[in-house]
Amino acid sequence: MPTHSAIVSTPSLDELREQVLEANLELVRRGLVLYTFGNASGLLRSEGWVVIKPSGVPYEKMKPEHLVVSDIDGKVLGGSLRPSSDLPTHCQLYRSFPDIGGVVHTHSEYATAWAQARREIPCLGTTHADYFHGPVPVTEPMPEQEITGEYEKNTGMAIVRAFRNRSPAALPGVLVANHGPFTWGPDPTTAAHNAVILESLARMAFLTVTINSEAEAIGRSLHDRHYLRKHGPAAYYGQTKETR
Amino acid sequence: MPTHSAIVSTPSLDELREQVLEANLELVRRGLVLYTFGNASGLLRSEGWVVIKPSGVPYEKMKPEHLVVSDIDGKVLGGSLRPSSDLPTHCQLYRSFPDIGGVVHTHSEYATAWAQARREIPCLGTTHADYFHGPVPVTEPMPEQEITGEYEKNTGMAIVRAFRNRSPAALPGVLVANHGPFTWGPDPTTAAHNAVILESLARMAFLTVTINSEAEAIGRSLHDRHYLRKHGPAAYYGQTKETR
Amino acid sequence: MPTHSAIVSTPSLDELREQVLEANLELVRRGLVLYTFGNASGLLRSEGWVVIKPSGVPYEKMKPEHLVVSDIDGKVLGGSLRPSSDLPTHCQLYRSFPDIGGVVHTHSEYATAWAQARREIPCLGTTHADYFHGPVPVTEPMPEQEITGEYEKNTGMAIVRAFRNRSPAALPGVLVANHGPFTWGPDPTTAAHNAVILESLARMAFLTVTINSEAEAIGRSLHDRHYLRKHGPAAYYGQTKETR
Amino acid sequence: MPTHSAIVSTPSLDELREQVLEANLELVRRGLVLYTFGNASGLLRSEGWVVIKPSGVPYEKMKPEHLVVSDIDGKVLGGSLRPSSDLPTHCQLYRSFPDIGGVVHTHSEYATAWAQARREIPCLGTTHADYFHGPVPVTEPMPEQEITGEYEKNTGMAIVRAFRNRSPAALPGVLVANHGPFTWGPDPTTAAHNAVILESLARMAFLTVTINSEAEAIGRSLHDRHYLRKHGPAAYYGQTKETR
Repeated sequence: MPTHSAIVSTPSLDELREQVLEANLELVRRGLVLYTFGNASGLLRSEGWVVIKPSGVPYEKMKPEHLVVSDIDGKVLGGSLRPSSDLPTHCQLYRSFPDIGGVVHTHSEYATAWAQARREIPCLGTTHADYFHGPVPVTEPMPEQEITGEYEKNTGMAIVRAFRNRSPAALPGVLVANHGPFTWGPDPTTAAHNAVILESLARMAFLTVTINSEAEAIGRSLHDRHYLRKHGPAAYYGQTKETR
Repeated sequence: MPTHSAIVSTPSLDELREQVLEANLELVRRGLVLYTFGNASGLLRSEGWVVIKPSGVPYEKMKPEHLVVSDIDGKVLGGSLRPSSDLPTHCQLYRSFPDIGGVVHTHSEYATAWAQARREIPCLGTTHADYFHGPVPVTEPMPEQEITGEYEKNTGMAIVRAFRNRSPAALPGVLVANHGPFTWGPDPTTAAHNAVILESLARMAFLTVTINSEAEAIGRSLHDRHYLRKHGPAAYYGQTKETR
Repeated sequence: MPTHSAIVSTPSLDELREQVLEANLELVRRGLVLYTFGNASGLLRSEGWVVIKPSGVPYEKMKPEHLVVSDIDGKVLGGSLRPSSDLPTHCQLYRSFPDIGGVVHTHSEYATAWAQARREIPCLGTTHADYFHGPVPVTEPMPEQEITGEYEKNTGMAIVRAFRNRSPAALPGVLVANHGPFTWGPDPTTAAHNAVILESLARMAFLTVTINSEAEAIGRSLHDRHYLRKHGPAAYYGQTKETR
Repeated sequence: MPTHSAIVSTPSLDELREQVLEANLELVRRGLVLYTFGNASGLLRSEGWVVIKPSGVPYEKMKPEHLVVSDIDGKVLGGSLRPSSDLPTHCQLYRSFPDIGGVVHTHSEYATAWAQARREIPCLGTTHADYFHGPVPVTEPMPEQEITGEYEKNTGMAIVRAFRNRSPAALPGVLVANHGPFTWGPDPTTAAHNAVILESLARMAFLTVTINSEAEAIGRSLHDRHYLRKHGPAAYYGQTKETR
């Protein structure tokens, strides 16, 4: 149960709280969550502190101080509310993916449909290639004992296994089989952004395969061109710091 | 026709009127009803009084005093407006399901489509498992004499028959064949909440089977895990009374 | 081209203008029209005057005095703007269907899709049966000379032909093949209401046949029961004049 | 990189900036773009100046002075921000299609789905015929060396090749294979309008072929009738200058 004292409020923590709250609200604004579904978190890696949405609290009433702070193993350090029940999944991702600083989970309807269909989302166009360098993977169904055991932590492990030969930087999201999407990024804002993009990609892929069930994934060179014009050292999309 | 005096206004009745009005308005806010479609009711089981939306009155003008009060057999006890024509269905559910205190009926489009397709909604993912402990059942078509007879009451009977081997607590809703969904709960607020969730499940199931017509229902252990983390004595989702 | 004097403003005409304007705006509010698509009209049968939306004028700027008045053959009697180019279709319906007082045409997307697919909308559920006593018919494609001739009037004739063995009172709308829906009613308000309902029916029918391509139309007795509880002398839906 | 002086502000340029900004905002209002996706431009043909949206700047903060001005070969002449990375595509269209004055690119979801499915959008109804005189074409996939070379310019060349035997006036838009739609017109306002219409056509065509996979394109005479009642010397839709 939540306790009250193991953390000290610092400017970085306060800033992270604001960012995590804002990331949660972005999910509402973009129509990705219903009622209290969904959760966004952020990591202060220097301290090993995770800031996450409380469980089952209405978004419209949520304030920075309602967010729960835990250590990277999910032990609650401060706050009087229970954390999202998916906290152990977030923590597992923070432990296994050393470069990420934000995680988002939703049941957004098109991405969830692909997860329920247990189909990876093929890269059918440049919108997808702009954000995901390859198809969006789907996890293997979890074995019985992982479900009845530490289920939420094991959900994180199932994601990590899906990334054994994949880069979480180049593929900032996954579909958990029969469950829904998780996305991530260097910070909570980007993780939420990726959740919004993923839902749009899922919707367009749904439409595409309905129009043409034989639709083919785009070729490697087009995929690379688009991904690399937004990411990496030669990126030329958006404003650079100097010109902005 | 409505008469004026068999009930006395009490704090419980006034509170129920407010809750029933709010449940009706929630259907509008969530896009589940068009014009005057749909109706929510609540039961004051101690008195055997049912509070229900009046028939064909615009939602935007509805006030607590417009709601109609009947006994549990649908006999109007107070109010100057006619009750929703579906009142006998609501009453049948209150008589047959002793633990429910709220009923909602809508023609929400995705749930209605499954009802029109006469297909139960399979449990394809954890969102479904969080709320419905099994597929959402669809009633058998009603025989000719039930349609030409007490049609609305018989609609209730068709629902009750579909639950002969099912628990209305574990499955808080049904699809009436070629008609649309009914949902329920311990109170009108929960019944309306379940109507909103059901529409979302119906939409995701539609998308899933369109992507993969062979999509399979989730396994029993995952289904149980999710249902039981939200319901029953070991639930760990949301805030407990102490921590809230 | 419009002229200025053959009509006198009367209370009935002013009221009809207001109603026709409101019917046009209802199409916008319900998302049935894009830009200046769509048009609603009303008939003052005592005078033989038709009030219709002007062609290509933005809805947000439309005022009662912008509406165009014509005789029942489409000859403009007053107003300085051109009438909707579909006026001859509206007039043909007013001449052929003696009990109607309002006509609406939209390109609402689901109804138009059925029209483009040249498929009647089967009655798959009670929502449909509440409003349309049978499937929503689709016209036959028009022969070449009718297209190159008085096209808009001939569109009306194609609708009339589709109703040779049907009642425009029991089926208040039609799909013009490869074009879109027309609906009508005793007044413009009801015609617009029917356009909104038709779009919802079209959407639910689309979903239903996608879920189950073998979905069957509902039986006659259920169809009759629902249609007749809302229409005709034994109707018991909504508030009667006395109780309202 | 942007420089600051090769242009002088003139009334025509200021007006074009306003129009281009408004065209960009129309894409947002109509739900065609997500985040900073999409871009609209306009051409001042007398000067050979192109005004285009800056890359990756949020729409809600965009002001006329943020727009970037380039010459018709894409060389930036003024403004302190980077232009949209698709500028070379816009420029190629302005150079090859001498009658256009506005170009719009979006990733609107239904049009993009057809582009991803590599299927032209057949003309299934009169809504389509009102705006596009034939099916909406899809480009050929680009060969490897065009992708790794001047990709954005070559995207423009792929569009131009698709119009070798087509008229950009009669078909004011195209689907770039595996990418998304480009539309154009005599000015930015019309180009944005055509982007909105194209998305609606794409949505209706999606629904139509889902209902009836054998749906047939409309006949030539109906197609001509509708296109020509809105376009060309004999057009009779909307208000003429005299009557407006």
